[in-house]
Amino acid sequence: MIKPLIFSLTLLLTLSTVAQQSFNSSSKSLSSPIVDENGNVTFSIYAPNAQNVSVFGDFSGSPATLVSDTTGLWSVTLSDVAPEYYIYQFNIDGLKIADPSNPYTKRDISTTWSTLMVPGDVTENYQVKDIPHGSVTHVWYDSPSVDSRRRMAVYTPAGYSDNSEPYPVLYLLHGMGGDEEAWLALGRTQQIMDNLIAQQLVTPMIVVMPNGNIDLEAAPGETSEGFVKPTIQLPHTMEGTYEHSFTDIVSFVDSVYNTIPSKNGRAVAGLSMGGFNSLNISALYPDMFDYVGLFSAAINPRANASDALFADREKLLARQFETAPKLYWIGIGKDDFLYDDNVKFRNLLDSNGYKYVYHESDGGHSWKNWRKYLQLFAPLLFRAGS
Amino acid sequence: MIKPLIFSLTLLLTLSTVAQQSFNSSSKSLSSPIVDENGNVTFSIYAPNAQNVSVFGDFSGSPATLVSDTTGLWSVTLSDVAPEYYIYQFNIDGLKIADPSNPYTKRDISTTWSTLMVPGDVTENYQVKDIPHGSVTHVWYDSPSVDSRRRMAVYTPAGYSDNSEPYPVLYLLHGMGGDEEAWLALGRTQQIMDNLIAQQLVTPMIVVMPNGNIDLEAAPGETSEGFVKPTIQLPHTMEGTYEHSFTDIVSFVDSVYNTIPSKNGRAVAGLSMGGFNSLNISALYPDMFDYVGLFSAAINPRANASDALFADREKLLARQFETAPKLYWIGIGKDDFLYDDNVKFRNLLDSNGYKYVYHESDGGHSWKNWRKYLQLFAPLLFRAGS
Repeated sequence: MIKPLIFSLTLLLTLSTVAQQSFNSSSKSLSSPIVDENGNVTFSIYAPNAQNVSVFGDFSGSPATLVSDTTGLWSVTLSDVAPEYYIYQFNIDGLKIADPSNPYTKRDISTTWSTLMVPGDVTENYQVKDIPHGSVTHVWYDSPSVDSRRRMAVYTPAGYSDNSEPYPVLYLLHGMGGDEEAWLALGRTQQIMDNLIAQQLVTPMIVVMPNGNIDLEAAPGETSEGFVKPTIQLPHTMEGTYEHSFTDIVSFVDSVYNTIPSKNGRAVAGLSMGGFNSLNISALYPDMFDYVGLFSAAINPRANASDALFADREKLLARQFETAPKLYWIGIGKDDFLYDDNVKFRNLLDSNGYKYVYHESDGGHSWKNWRKYLQLFAPLLFRAGS
Repeated sequence: MIKPLIFSLTLLLTLSTVAQQSFNSSSKSLSSPIVDENGNVTFSIYAPNAQNVSVFGDFSGSPATLVSDTTGLWSVTLSDVAPEYYIYQFNIDGLKIADPSNPYTKRDISTTWSTLMVPGDVTENYQVKDIPHGSVTHVWYDSPSVDSRRRMAVYTPAGYSDNSEPYPVLYLLHGMGGDEEAWLALGRTQQIMDNLIAQQLVTPMIVVMPNGNIDLEAAPGETSEGFVKPTIQLPHTMEGTYEHSFTDIVSFVDSVYNTIPSKNGRAVAGLSMGGFNSLNISALYPDMFDYVGLFSAAINPRANASDALFADREKLLARQFETAPKLYWIGIGKDDFLYDDNVKFRNLLDSNGYKYVYHESDGGHSWKNWRKYLQLFAPLLFRAGS
């Protein structure tokens, strides 16, 4: 009665939506990038009529030129690429594209990048390991203070659903142009937390990643605006509205998740604009967070910001440090364009005797540093006796 | 004290990881695709040395040729494109790539496609509306019967966390080459469920989207294998292992979520290979599902499958229909390569007097049909008196 299904290649391909139209000799047969055990990385792309092809990414300050064979296949091998999680694109005579042979891409604002992991010590915690994994939920909440539905991502650690003990919460904020996906996509937050928790280096905690663009409900493509092209220029950033509305986020999280709903069970940290938000939110609500992290933080509000939050910053910091947070952590790279602003901010803290932990790294305003800061910061949170 | 941050373009760009290296005149200044109110769609790409550029996608059976201006900017306008959610790529002299000006992409097996929504009646439920939204969680569970940790996606409807009443569960299975992301990415499952539930056309339910590739823990890039290139050819598909292990999934869901843990609170449906899985799982566990959906289902096992599940199919179906499911739903397109197999399967059901609901649509083996079938099937589930 039952005739065996013969698996022919033609038949298999029709199982993919329009694969019958798309059999792509260039990308199907090519593997790019290829990473060998010595950290040599070979990039390849088929571009028969191109005059110049290069590859550029955050593994190098300058693009590398590819060389063509007679069939129009271009390639280049970069030697001794340091272990890291990278993004890159090809440039074909001015056309910048993700690598069509690499299925792993991440969007950064409106650009699609290919991703590349060169494994090594530094990437150990960025990899998915065969260990217990937490969950990531994309959830919508009502934000009455800005009268909108908004989306956030929430990491709950392995064992969360089996455990009746409440969990502490880290609120982890993205930078300008980012959204609720940023810390998950380029920050490798789930992998970092899974690995550090499995190694017992970090207290199991919930990590809440909200969307700090108060003009947007959610990440691009996930909103009722439809598929509009994302932009970094938004009217209500770094002017106070998000900071004031942050209680909506904390109330929602405390109502839906099994949290420690008090200062000693809450941390807030962020990168760049998210560091600015963390500085201001923790100062505005001094009883809310016992742990604060500024990662390559923007310090100054935008030019036209009139919110009292900024005019009163010194007063608010004085009030915050009366009942000082258990940890006020500042990290920045030596080459960061926000370095000088951070020096001035630390001078302000120093001149008032406000205690903080300072970490200065190499490099600049980069995900490489933000992933590193998260791995330095998270182990300091919610420790007994801290 | 606080110097306002002056937002210059240079400074803003440095906020993005390597944006300073990547200012992309071609993709930044271009908008592609542009959809006008009459359904005309204009595609554009910058490719100065190309000889031939075309665009192909599931809006048309054949590629459309783009025309270049003197600057190397290629474009074409397609008229009266029917409303639908589409995927497409450009072909530049044989190099097939996603549209670099379009930030919205979806991976299908190892190919990155650009996506395109032409709005209209048919896409109403595919759009994010300003209505209450459910949550989507990516969660790992232990599957003892195959001795592995595995990942699934779970949709919980709006209000789930506020409600103590248990919810029914739809298990929604992907096709060959898909994974736990497929129904969310190209199937628009969250949007369809949010919209149908908000319109009270569908009973609020949990939707569980597991990974049916028993050789993989999770979607590509989310596993401890690392960033290997996905392939459609996997050893343990359509040979019974997944079907036998399905109790691990149901047990986990019933233990973690607030479910109706009985036959009348469970549905199983899937597309293509997922339809095959649904047929076999519901037959193997006749007391588990009161609602079964076969969407463009593969009917026959692979040639070398030796599991008794397949040799005993008629016996198992006889047992299943002794206590017949409340709904056995079969949908397929007239042009589907699996059409004849579905005719034979329906003949088998007819000859035994097993009742089912049959929906025959235009078209073939496509997401266009599977989104449609989900919208037809979901309203029939878990209705009072059904």
